[in-house]
Amino acid sequence: MEALLNNLREKKPLIHCITNYVTANDVANALLAIGGAPVMADSEAEAEDITSISAALYINTGTLNDMRQAAMLRAGRAANAAGIPALLDPVGAGASRGRTDAVKKLIYAVKFAVIRGNASEIAAISGAGGFTKGVDAAPDDSLPVDSARAVAADTKSVVVMSGKTDVVTDGRRCVFVKNGSELMSRVTGTGCVLSAIVAAFVAANPENTFDAAVAAVCAMGLAGQKAAERMSGADGSFSYRGYMIDALYNMSGRTLEKEARYEIV
Amino acid sequence: MEALLNNLREKKPLIHCITNYVTANDVANALLAIGGAPVMADSEAEAEDITSISAALYINTGTLNDMRQAAMLRAGRAANAAGIPALLDPVGAGASRGRTDAVKKLIYAVKFAVIRGNASEIAAISGAGGFTKGVDAAPDDSLPVDSARAVAADTKSVVVMSGKTDVVTDGRRCVFVKNGSELMSRVTGTGCVLSAIVAAFVAANPENTFDAAVAAVCAMGLAGQKAAERMSGADGSFSYRGYMIDALYNMSGRTLEKEARYEIV
Amino acid sequence: MEALLNNLREKKPLIHCITNYVTANDVANALLAIGGAPVMADSEAEAEDITSISAALYINTGTLNDMRQAAMLRAGRAANAAGIPALLDPVGAGASRGRTDAVKKLIYAVKFAVIRGNASEIAAISGAGGFTKGVDAAPDDSLPVDSARAVAADTKSVVVMSGKTDVVTDGRRCVFVKNGSELMSRVTGTGCVLSAIVAAFVAANPENTFDAAVAAVCAMGLAGQKAAERMSGADGSFSYRGYMIDALYNMSGRTLEKEARYEIV
Repeated sequence: MEALLNNLREKKPLIHCITNYVTANDVANALLAIGGAPVMADSEAEAEDITSISAALYINTGTLNDMRQAAMLRAGRAANAAGIPALLDPVGAGASRGRTDAVKKLIYAVKFAVIRGNASEIAAISGAGGFTKGVDAAPDDSLPVDSARAVAADTKSVVVMSGKTDVVTDGRRCVFVKNGSELMSRVTGTGCVLSAIVAAFVAANPENTFDAAVAAVCAMGLAGQKAAERMSGADGSFSYRGYMIDALYNMSGRTLEKEARYEIV
Repeated sequence: MEALLNNLREKKPLIHCITNYVTANDVANALLAIGGAPVMADSEAEAEDITSISAALYINTGTLNDMRQAAMLRAGRAANAAGIPALLDPVGAGASRGRTDAVKKLIYAVKFAVIRGNASEIAAISGAGGFTKGVDAAPDDSLPVDSARAVAADTKSVVVMSGKTDVVTDGRRCVFVKNGSELMSRVTGTGCVLSAIVAAFVAANPENTFDAAVAAVCAMGLAGQKAAERMSGADGSFSYRGYMIDALYNMSGRTLEKEARYEIV
Repeated sequence: MEALLNNLREKKPLIHCITNYVTANDVANALLAIGGAPVMADSEAEAEDITSISAALYINTGTLNDMRQAAMLRAGRAANAAGIPALLDPVGAGASRGRTDAVKKLIYAVKFAVIRGNASEIAAISGAGGFTKGVDAAPDDSLPVDSARAVAADTKSVVVMSGKTDVVTDGRRCVFVKNGSELMSRVTGTGCVLSAIVAAFVAANPENTFDAAVAAVCAMGLAGQKAAERMSGADGSFSYRGYMIDALYNMSGRTLEKEARYEIV
């Protein structure tokens, strides 16, 4: 893992972000903190030009509208044509038909290197495709690992499914990540930020998408732990949010290597 | 007040927010801090679906554009049809004809459980409707309580008018809230956040809108006070903003009960 | 410099901001911290009304789209007609043809009191106009002071070019500002915030645009230094960002006067 983070810090990959306005600032600052660089541009007319200077594309469907959706499709196709990795964070898939449809359109039109969502978002994508459901061996009985595997197999993407235990799978391989803290759910944008961190790790390690995704998930979880340890006195959720980004900024490859907690299943 | 906040913490109401991009992150994080949950979706096509899973609708007219205005109207009607409370924060009413007109259209089309604005926004709404102006008994001679009462009576909404002293009225009952700090005006979004806190309290206590609004105003003011007490050394307005959200996160029902300062007039 | 900052604190100029959603919150809070007041409104329909109540117009082309571009053009013309200063932050000029064209259109249609960008943005504007390139005497051999001078001469604007050394020029006069910290580049929005601070200084000192711009650049750099000195323990880039805004809030005219480091060249 040390090498994967060191690569990121050396290459400082530029990540083209088309994302929601609620957490855009945290996404940009988290990318800078971990060692990448953000370019936030959500106009359709700029899709090709911005893609041509970027090392990866990050698409997040929060606060989606028609304009931004058109930009996502065009940037996604440009990323595929240019051979740079694209990541999808299907925020809100399952919450409205419009959102679920938009996410499906993106998945049909664009090859994503990684799809990162929570269990219900992954289930919405899975269900939309009519995949079978089952129960896989999992540390938590309700962990829908089958959904994640099915989406991964169907899309040829690495799927990261976030939860108390995070799951990373390419349909065949599967890793459970145990880093993290309960407090992460008390702050908005933790998922958006995780997706951005994954995009940065993958951009810097394009030959090794699966391991890069696992390392990114460990790094974010570890930042959540470090932030929890730093809480004291009158600190609350705002302080916690800042401590997470501070922890990404201060994370060394060595610490990540030593404190990552994951299990290959 | 203790029971009202405890209800909120237990029910974790989902609040559908259609709001401006300047303070959207603070609004979302403040909702999580007080115990609610935000869903930020401003597309017209999603209005009904998102409303159907939400406990309240929060509309804020900052950075208004035509697309978001259409979404507000449709979501407002959907909230009324579904019987969930809607709150309006008429940011900028009075600052431009377009904004004032948009706010008027919203008030005519949608029944709001609560309207929350500063004195000039409430006056703009009041003036627009041609209400009589007068001077009511008020701790500050210039406090336009009559405007607030008139808007409340005309719209059948609870009106929260923010200022040094906050006013809560349903046209008949009237409460002055004395919690708060001068520093709150040195930070952007304090009003947007207050409105969101009111929406969360009302969503969790729908049978008791007036008391819920009073409790929310006390809670926000108290968070402002706690934040002011925490200031030290090189702390400035950014620290203050964080301390307010931290204080919302750490506020107990008991503290709110004990330190709320309000007066029924 | 003391008088320029004191003017700002006394006049509390209202700055009409049409800006990107990534850093809008920092821009608004930084304006409040330094003593100004933000009004963020990006609708074309409101351009004249909002301009009529504002002391300056701030245009930032980050996350540009067609709607916001139309609002910028109309607000810019309204600012010119009303005789209030307009500032342009050409974020992303040079990164895409669309963005560069949009910036050129703005410069052709609107007279800007100040243009503030980094070296590549200023070069993109300069190159677009077919200006000659050369190498000027500069503390850093690669500092493209000629570009800045050429843009200033061509547009009759004061140009602020940010970098390790900041350059302020009106085409004739030229000042190098040495305040600042390496850490400022590890945070998103430092440039956007600087531009807003310049707009506020210029709004409060309209008869003295050049000196006001120099003072603003020194103030922002000094805030970056104070923030760097405050870093300790587990602090990272999020803490640093907060410390900068805190430092703007706490900056006195006297401190600015004493610690500003600039050189007239």
